[in-house]
Amino acid sequence: MRDFTTDHHWLSINTATVRAQWPLDRIIDECAARGIRAISPWRDQVAAVGLERVAQRLHATGLQLSGYCRGGMFPGVDAASRRAALADNRRAVDEAKTLNAPCLVLVVGGLPGALAGTPVHKDIAAARRDVHDGIAATLEYARDVGMPLAIEPLHPMYAADRACVNTLEQALDLCDVLDPQRTGMLGADGNERAALGVAVDVYHVWWDPKLEAQIARAGRERLLALHVCDWLVPTRDLLNDRGMMGDGVIDIPRIRGWVEAAGFGGYSEVEIFSAENWWKRDGGEVLDTCIARHRSAV
Amino acid sequence: MRDFTTDHHWLSINTATVRAQWPLDRIIDECAARGIRAISPWRDQVAAVGLERVAQRLHATGLQLSGYCRGGMFPGVDAASRRAALADNRRAVDEAKTLNAPCLVLVVGGLPGALAGTPVHKDIAAARRDVHDGIAATLEYARDVGMPLAIEPLHPMYAADRACVNTLEQALDLCDVLDPQRTGMLGADGNERAALGVAVDVYHVWWDPKLEAQIARAGRERLLALHVCDWLVPTRDLLNDRGMMGDGVIDIPRIRGWVEAAGFGGYSEVEIFSAENWWKRDGGEVLDTCIARHRSAV
Repeated sequence: MRDFTTDHHWLSINTATVRAQWPLDRIIDECAARGIRAISPWRDQVAAVGLERVAQRLHATGLQLSGYCRGGMFPGVDAASRRAALADNRRAVDEAKTLNAPCLVLVVGGLPGALAGTPVHKDIAAARRDVHDGIAATLEYARDVGMPLAIEPLHPMYAADRACVNTLEQALDLCDVLDPQRTGMLGADGNERAALGVAVDVYHVWWDPKLEAQIARAGRERLLALHVCDWLVPTRDLLNDRGMMGDGVIDIPRIRGWVEAAGFGGYSEVEIFSAENWWKRDGGEVLDTCIARHRSAV
Repeated sequence: MRDFTTDHHWLSINTATVRAQWPLDRIIDECAARGIRAISPWRDQVAAVGLERVAQRLHATGLQLSGYCRGGMFPGVDAASRRAALADNRRAVDEAKTLNAPCLVLVVGGLPGALAGTPVHKDIAAARRDVHDGIAATLEYARDVGMPLAIEPLHPMYAADRACVNTLEQALDLCDVLDPQRTGMLGADGNERAALGVAVDVYHVWWDPKLEAQIARAGRERLLALHVCDWLVPTRDLLNDRGMMGDGVIDIPRIRGWVEAAGFGGYSEVEIFSAENWWKRDGGEVLDTCIARHRSAV
């Protein structure tokens, strides 16, 4: 297992972590100034600054991406909305390619309409079929472009409105169905990666009694990203009360150990949604704390 | 599948549903007055009224129990606290027996200290070992008394502080280890029940892609209780924002169909924790709504 205690060589910042404080170009500069080598930006943050300007700032600072957030949201209320989702996912693949992302993270979506508060049906099995079909279609396009797709299983508390893929086992079952041969593609960094894999976020999967076994099952080819933050006790909000690493109950080093034992050697990407705490602090303080906790608690 | 649309013969009220409105003796009388045939009371509500008086009111009204809430909370900060938990579980078994409950529901506990906001460690595997040992010891006592134990897997969002058994598969794995022969005992109602089984609460398990298969695996012997309520979109609080059946996204009839196909023929027990809605309404309105929704949405 890699030693993180003496530097932050393998730290990446998911840019949602300081989204309340800064626009993306400022985030890039602030990360670069601290010797942070990678980020994972969100599409809306990219769009707000402009894709070309973001690409330029990344090039100028030498920052890499650890992923691109996000594609997905496949289930739709009707055929037209499902087609629109596929078109949007193709654009996400293109943007990820422009920014040299190692993978496009997929938050697959839940019951159609639920995120807006008006679910149009209660058939989670049907939503899961939409997800299967949506990933299959997107994978075809992503293969041509050369952009790996990382299915991110989300915590079961998001099953209704954000993602109906809720365990690593379920995500890997999808990988087995859609890419049984674990086909690969050459990344921008010269490393071979699976065309379809998973993003493991400790916040979503830490509770799973089958986690260790499923991480081993994923293996090096399918472990495309590792996200870290912490589960607070108590958790006061389902979406925006994530904790800084070390402030909660997740044994992050243990999980990182499993992921690395399976062959993962990429970045630990810090992704913290925290409306009442970290989003209210100075952005520099947040980044400095991420660096410190990356050493002490990841 | 049983037809619930014309009566509420198989409705049970978990007494937490109107805990904010009435003490338990009043709840018993209000349920009986509405032709509700069963309740599932909580220990603190029983203690507040007195065990003997509750037994007397049940006898006088003819109300049955569909379960008794609850034993569990096995992990402890030290050996003394684990011993204290075992002693408390023996008392819960005895109370359940006094009240002729068909089973004692087990909410197994999470990381020691977490419910009080001060987890003493982050080792969920160790907590799960404590749970195994605690159920094993309690099962020995419960067998002698003749009280089936129903492990209730709780939603993964409660893994840290309330229960580290979080899927039906995990609960059934415990059953397989602790009671591989599916031993039974004769209940107060003359029905044979497994000594160790599960309580299936749709709120905790609805999201699980393996739910149908695991319900079938449980089978008639191990399906000791069925709890119903609904998952609201959005959910505003992790603990006390459960919905009335029909107000959320859970396809309750589908899950009840699976449970009944596996052989379950007991009560559908309504358990709603709702600080901002149902706990603020008139208790009679809540019970009348439970009756109506039992017919239309369960």
